[in-house]
Amino acid sequence: MTAELPGMNLRAIGIVRNEVKQPVRQDWEKVVSDIVVDSSLTEALDGLEDFSHIIVLYWMHRRAATGQLPTKVHPRGRQELPLVGLFATRSPDRPNPVGIATVRLLQRQGNTLRVEGLDAIDGTPVIDIKPHIPGYDSVADAKVPPWITRK
Amino acid sequence: MTAELPGMNLRAIGIVRNEVKQPVRQDWEKVVSDIVVDSSLTEALDGLEDFSHIIVLYWMHRRAATGQLPTKVHPRGRQELPLVGLFATRSPDRPNPVGIATVRLLQRQGNTLRVEGLDAIDGTPVIDIKPHIPGYDSVADAKVPPWITRK
Repeated sequence: MTAELPGMNLRAIGIVRNEVKQPVRQDWEKVVSDIVVDSSLTEALDGLEDFSHIIVLYWMHRRAATGQLPTKVHPRGRQELPLVGLFATRSPDRPNPVGIATVRLLQRQGNTLRVEGLDAIDGTPVIDIKPHIPGYDSVADAKVPPWITRK
Repeated sequence: MTAELPGMNLRAIGIVRNEVKQPVRQDWEKVVSDIVVDSSLTEALDGLEDFSHIIVLYWMHRRAATGQLPTKVHPRGRQELPLVGLFATRSPDRPNPVGIATVRLLQRQGNTLRVEGLDAIDGTPVIDIKPHIPGYDSVADAKVPPWITRK
């Protein structure tokens, strides 16, 4: 399947700056990060400050796989949770290590976006930024399996 | 900035199949698509059927830019809407033409996912599939500018 497809190469449009230097599991909700966007793209951020939340797409560069990926994983590395398919989880170990996070936009200043809750470490390349549009991105009645909310 | 970053190359994990053959603006809400995932990854889909909604990341292959992108656009190509920065919109013309869509999962059968509302044309390469997790992806009180809802 891959052979018939065109080359799909990404370029970084910016970089994450925060206090988290190592990829460790942690509570990211209150982590404040600056996304420093390439200065050639500053104007392309105009109007983003009218949204309370944005979606950040980023490249999990420390996870870019070299070997064989498992097809099934225990969510969040917790052995007591059921073994499920990789795509049924948000595991960073995936064929394309692209993360997406919906975060609160605290401030925009020039080419820098200050956000809260971005689960990416310092130095992570950012590949896209999109506005969060509730009618398109939020689902009021979404159903999930029980393991999602298990403490 | 780009120079210091590692190569970021994507590979297709699947392909979109539907009746929409040309990239035209339309109402996608009721479009039903099959996502045919590479058969080597069938097991990696196990458990996805326990979610009502999934997030599809796809490569807008007909939009992969060759020339200079505008930094500001009229949303949805509508001249009466304000000119805003590219990243404040969901325009397909972006530095990295990666689309994300939150869609209802109607059925999973082996390596095929039938979904409703995916705004991607037939033949679009799929690069990732993630479960939609309300606490992470939905925002109850998100604010947007007035142009978002203007008819």
